[in-house]
Amino acid sequence: MKSVNIGIIGLGTIGRGVYSAIKSNGSLIAKKTGVVLKVKSVCDTDKKALKSIKDKTVAKQFSADAILLDKDIDIVVELIGGVNPAKKIILSALENKKHVVTANKELISKHWKPIFDVAVRNNLFVNFEASVGGAIPVIRVIQKSFIADDISTIYGILNGTTNFILTEILEKACAFKTALKSAQQKGIAEKNPELDISGKDSAHKLAILSLLAFGRYVSPGNIYTEGISMIEAQDLSNAGKWGYSIKLLAIAKKDGGLLQLRVHPTLLKATHLLSGVSGTNNAIFVKGNLVGESLLLGKGAGSKPTSTSVLGDIVEIARQIAFVSKRNTLPYNLDYAREEKNIKKIEELEVPFYTRFSVIDRPGVLASISSILAKNSISIANVSQEERKEGKTVPVVILTHKAKEGNMRKAIAKINAMDYVTKKTVVIRIEE
Amino acid sequence: MKSVNIGIIGLGTIGRGVYSAIKSNGSLIAKKTGVVLKVKSVCDTDKKALKSIKDKTVAKQFSADAILLDKDIDIVVELIGGVNPAKKIILSALENKKHVVTANKELISKHWKPIFDVAVRNNLFVNFEASVGGAIPVIRVIQKSFIADDISTIYGILNGTTNFILTEILEKACAFKTALKSAQQKGIAEKNPELDISGKDSAHKLAILSLLAFGRYVSPGNIYTEGISMIEAQDLSNAGKWGYSIKLLAIAKKDGGLLQLRVHPTLLKATHLLSGVSGTNNAIFVKGNLVGESLLLGKGAGSKPTSTSVLGDIVEIARQIAFVSKRNTLPYNLDYAREEKNIKKIEELEVPFYTRFSVIDRPGVLASISSILAKNSISIANVSQEERKEGKTVPVVILTHKAKEGNMRKAIAKINAMDYVTKKTVVIRIEE
Repeated sequence: MKSVNIGIIGLGTIGRGVYSAIKSNGSLIAKKTGVVLKVKSVCDTDKKALKSIKDKTVAKQFSADAILLDKDIDIVVELIGGVNPAKKIILSALENKKHVVTANKELISKHWKPIFDVAVRNNLFVNFEASVGGAIPVIRVIQKSFIADDISTIYGILNGTTNFILTEILEKACAFKTALKSAQQKGIAEKNPELDISGKDSAHKLAILSLLAFGRYVSPGNIYTEGISMIEAQDLSNAGKWGYSIKLLAIAKKDGGLLQLRVHPTLLKATHLLSGVSGTNNAIFVKGNLVGESLLLGKGAGSKPTSTSVLGDIVEIARQIAFVSKRNTLPYNLDYAREEKNIKKIEELEVPFYTRFSVIDRPGVLASISSILAKNSISIANVSQEERKEGKTVPVVILTHKAKEGNMRKAIAKINAMDYVTKKTVVIRIEE
Repeated sequence: MKSVNIGIIGLGTIGRGVYSAIKSNGSLIAKKTGVVLKVKSVCDTDKKALKSIKDKTVAKQFSADAILLDKDIDIVVELIGGVNPAKKIILSALENKKHVVTANKELISKHWKPIFDVAVRNNLFVNFEASVGGAIPVIRVIQKSFIADDISTIYGILNGTTNFILTEILEKACAFKTALKSAQQKGIAEKNPELDISGKDSAHKLAILSLLAFGRYVSPGNIYTEGISMIEAQDLSNAGKWGYSIKLLAIAKKDGGLLQLRVHPTLLKATHLLSGVSGTNNAIFVKGNLVGESLLLGKGAGSKPTSTSVLGDIVEIARQIAFVSKRNTLPYNLDYAREEKNIKKIEELEVPFYTRFSVIDRPGVLASISSILAKNSISIANVSQEERKEGKTVPVVILTHKAKEGNMRKAIAKINAMDYVTKKTVVIRIEE
């Protein structure tokens, strides 16, 4: 049977997971595909990580060069994450005529162009299924299965940590900080959770999906991004009462000649397919002119689920190496991608809003808020003030009809400056 | 730009849909993939269908031979359905060195072996994504994305017609026949709905999924199959009260050295991902040792959604034709498939059951039923007799603990023979 040599660079959770998955499922993979995957070398700068690989036939390397310069290695699997030194390593692998598999969303979302330039020039594959949605095969599905579609909308729950936290706040009726701590204790959130809870991780993934689905590239730094740290249990229960869930959504939408790209907490109808996605699951909703509405759901992280995607990528390349002499490595969709300038400005967005005002309970407050909203062309759909505490702070929740975000921002700034407001107003967009 | 010639055989809903999709999305596809898809000829025995294709540059053929013998045609798209004459046409296309794309579940589920024998011998692709799950990319996902997984379980809602009927019975609290009629009026059920409502269509699809996921082939005729015609509104509402939905599930499961393959109405926990799949949607739940639990959901039928899958298949081949000189057409997983003899006998199955007895309301009936169940080693989990109509027929619903199906059948046969039973007992398996 043909055999393909692999070098794994980076032995964190995912790297060790891929190694273990090849160990546990390797003979099944060989039976299914006719190719034996052989891990020839692994590399990490951490001695302990290297020591965790017991197999003596696997070379343990401190330096990536030992893999990058090894003529016997066919596929380099980069699982370090982050831009540096991953970018240098991948470019060097490609210059050394090695195919690449990576799970690196930040790198692909920011530097796909120079990477694919070298890959196409050298007729090499760069596969990155695990970079978005963990075990969810969204990259292959958008690139291949839905290739004929004019995709108009993508909604993604692309970050398991934040989805877990939102589920936890709802179920335990606890504070954001408590839910975050619980996620950290369970190993679901990192010690420094900033990348996840700020929405930036989702923005990286959204940039990749936009590139593949629309052929339109926007650097993640130019994607409007909001995190979830201002969400309180009362927002989730208020939303529930009105028939909505709250999810951190990554949204990509064609809007006339413009493109909407945004990551923010969103009220979604409780009946929407994505509203039932709880805990660490990820899910991606895709709408196209042929396929209609489609949903992919699965584990968004974790070493085993992510291994599925990394190994699917490895096998695809391994079969090409084993069975095809002349290859077509041209990436689907990427060759027509262009830098997108026509992004819809967030101020121009028109959606309904959920707003929670923290105000002193006294006569005239609601009249003042309503009047400021009205002056900014924002009309009210629902108001709810359930608590009464004369002279104390109470929440007033208002759902608006569709309004321009720019107007909403002006109105909220004005209201926040009023003496009856005791805390910054929470504003959450509603997706219809 | 490179161009690939296509011949479409069969201009029913799907055939016309694929033609229209190429017309509407062809230039987008070319932009995305670098290949122009050119429909050179279409074929149908129905003059009216041929006339519906207005484009004068497309040759209209009465006979498939005009396409099969045309040296300029690269890909034959078979969309006739059924075994004859589709089998002959596909084999002839392959003998004439043409790649094949088909949506034909019956043909692939019954005759994949001779078809792939010729295809592999002639180094040709036979793609069949649209044969299972309409627009859901389950074939590619199981063959490629989850290739590294040891898949243990597949649950599929694979037939939109029956799922629509079950949804309709639940929502309208109507009879099966009324729901079927409504489905027929909406064009969701065919005039002769036998293939759908008997579960046979789902069995065809399950045979294909088992082949791909496990490499184990069972002819659809050997798959235990039950339809939905005995389901009444009260069964759906009873199930609901106990926290279950009822779905026509296609189930494939590894069970020790045996394989469970079965299609039947099933009580599923209301919290299960598949319980929320309503109307004509299809969905497939896959569990593997790496990927964990994964769900694919989308439109199971209709000309546009099905076109997505057919075109994904066409594009994959077209890019190979356009850009690769030596191809690897070896099908993933199929080359290791073997005929499966070790199917779990349905009598050996051990699951909990939902049973609805139609019995005369008189003292001693419940005691008699309980005693017969007990004698057959079946223990009761829940009993409900809500109506009281002394001397008249009332429903008695019993949920059992796990019991052997063989025992259950014996018990039910005995109970059905009792004088207090006025109608055949409804028995539905529960999936835990």
